[in-house]
Amino acid sequence: MRHALQGGKRLRAFLVLEGARLHGVEAGAAIWPACGIEAMHAYSLVHDDLPCMDDDAERRGQPTVHVKWDEMTAVLTGDALQALAFELVTHASTGSAAIRAELALSLARAAGGQGMVMGQALDMAAERARAPLSLEQITALQAGKTGALFEWSAAAGARMAGADPAPLIRYAAAMGQAFQIHDDVIDVTGDAAAAGKAVGKDAAAGKATFVSLLGLEGARARAAELVDAACDALSVYGAAAATLQQTARFAISRHS
Amino acid sequence: MRHALQGGKRLRAFLVLEGARLHGVEAGAAIWPACGIEAMHAYSLVHDDLPCMDDDAERRGQPTVHVKWDEMTAVLTGDALQALAFELVTHASTGSAAIRAELALSLARAAGGQGMVMGQALDMAAERARAPLSLEQITALQAGKTGALFEWSAAAGARMAGADPAPLIRYAAAMGQAFQIHDDVIDVTGDAAAAGKAVGKDAAAGKATFVSLLGLEGARARAAELVDAACDALSVYGAAAATLQQTARFAISRHS
Repeated sequence: MRHALQGGKRLRAFLVLEGARLHGVEAGAAIWPACGIEAMHAYSLVHDDLPCMDDDAERRGQPTVHVKWDEMTAVLTGDALQALAFELVTHASTGSAAIRAELALSLARAAGGQGMVMGQALDMAAERARAPLSLEQITALQAGKTGALFEWSAAAGARMAGADPAPLIRYAAAMGQAFQIHDDVIDVTGDAAAAGKAVGKDAAAGKATFVSLLGLEGARARAAELVDAACDALSVYGAAAATLQQTARFAISRHS
Repeated sequence: MRHALQGGKRLRAFLVLEGARLHGVEAGAAIWPACGIEAMHAYSLVHDDLPCMDDDAERRGQPTVHVKWDEMTAVLTGDALQALAFELVTHASTGSAAIRAELALSLARAAGGQGMVMGQALDMAAERARAPLSLEQITALQAGKTGALFEWSAAAGARMAGADPAPLIRYAAAMGQAFQIHDDVIDVTGDAAAAGKAVGKDAAAGKATFVSLLGLEGARARAAELVDAACDALSVYGAAAATLQQTARFAISRHS
């Protein structure tokens, strides 16, 4: 579990902490759901890397759990990390019982069979069918696979403050999509050392990606539009949202 | 997910409902955590049956998920069932936010890396090491693998009523251990058709079991002692606990 949690960008945790700061929620409370969402994300990576899924040997510049240990350990590590996510989110220090119950319920929905797991299942099904997806299908798939946890992360602080999470959810939905498009761009243009994982896999597998459907420049332009939409969604927060707006710009300029 | 949830004894759900009844908690509220714990249990079976774990082809008289579909589907099905467990437990109909937050936190601890997953990891590690476990080690392993969810199930109703869950936890700990000893007895004496799963696997694998350590009669006697202890733990409830006491007796008389 420790191996799987090390490294990474901590982007989801950062979204939780920034969303909390925007609403005056103390970092000492927000750190619990911030750690929880990183445990949830780490579990999904450990299971997605399994031989029966994406079969990846490297993650965050380290051997994947099933490579360093074995498949059994990877399955159990992911299982325990998912439980840990709920343990952290419902920790007494997160806040009132109402906050903890709402965060746990919304996290379960975001992570489960109608959220992240559905996105991964659609991804695997498309790969099996060897029928490249349409732009609409890829967008729906990524909304589950990446978007659901992004939205939960950005909205957590508003939920903790009893405020309307809608602007942050709109921000995260657009930013998450831009993030994923940029992942496809990195897969084509990046190098494995910088990315900390294999690149060029999607193109080699003949998978439809945002790049294959929109072209490299088209994909970059679409990602930039989405980042603008993400930034606009936060206008209600004024200058206080500058860090989250910069985060959205980072999402399409990063190399890993 | 539907395939994995069908059949089974629903013993954990029954413990939730009976524990709730003992404390005057309405069945319409208790049904949510009762369904949640069955989703959690079903996830653990789907993952435990995987080729990299126990490699079982049959469960509850049906082909296991990875046999009927494939390993990828089994991993994702289990993942989504775990999330569903937390979704059901934190459902608004379960009760107040305080109840839902406490049930979710205690469930996360029971299911995770210090509870059920730890039990399964110890079991797999023992199998790999090919060093038969001592009675103390098997007891500790089963306390995690089976006991943690049993205890959570029995205690849920008391937690929902704000009552002391200690007697029900003592009951479930003893009953869970008796249940597991009887599983080992069935593995030696049972037939696969009645059990709905393969039998004789542990003996064939040279694994230490309660039967190999205590002998068949010794194991039966130990299970009977534990059932007596389980029944005694509920004496505080008087005649109202008769159904749970009969349930403990059922745990060591069942054929599957």
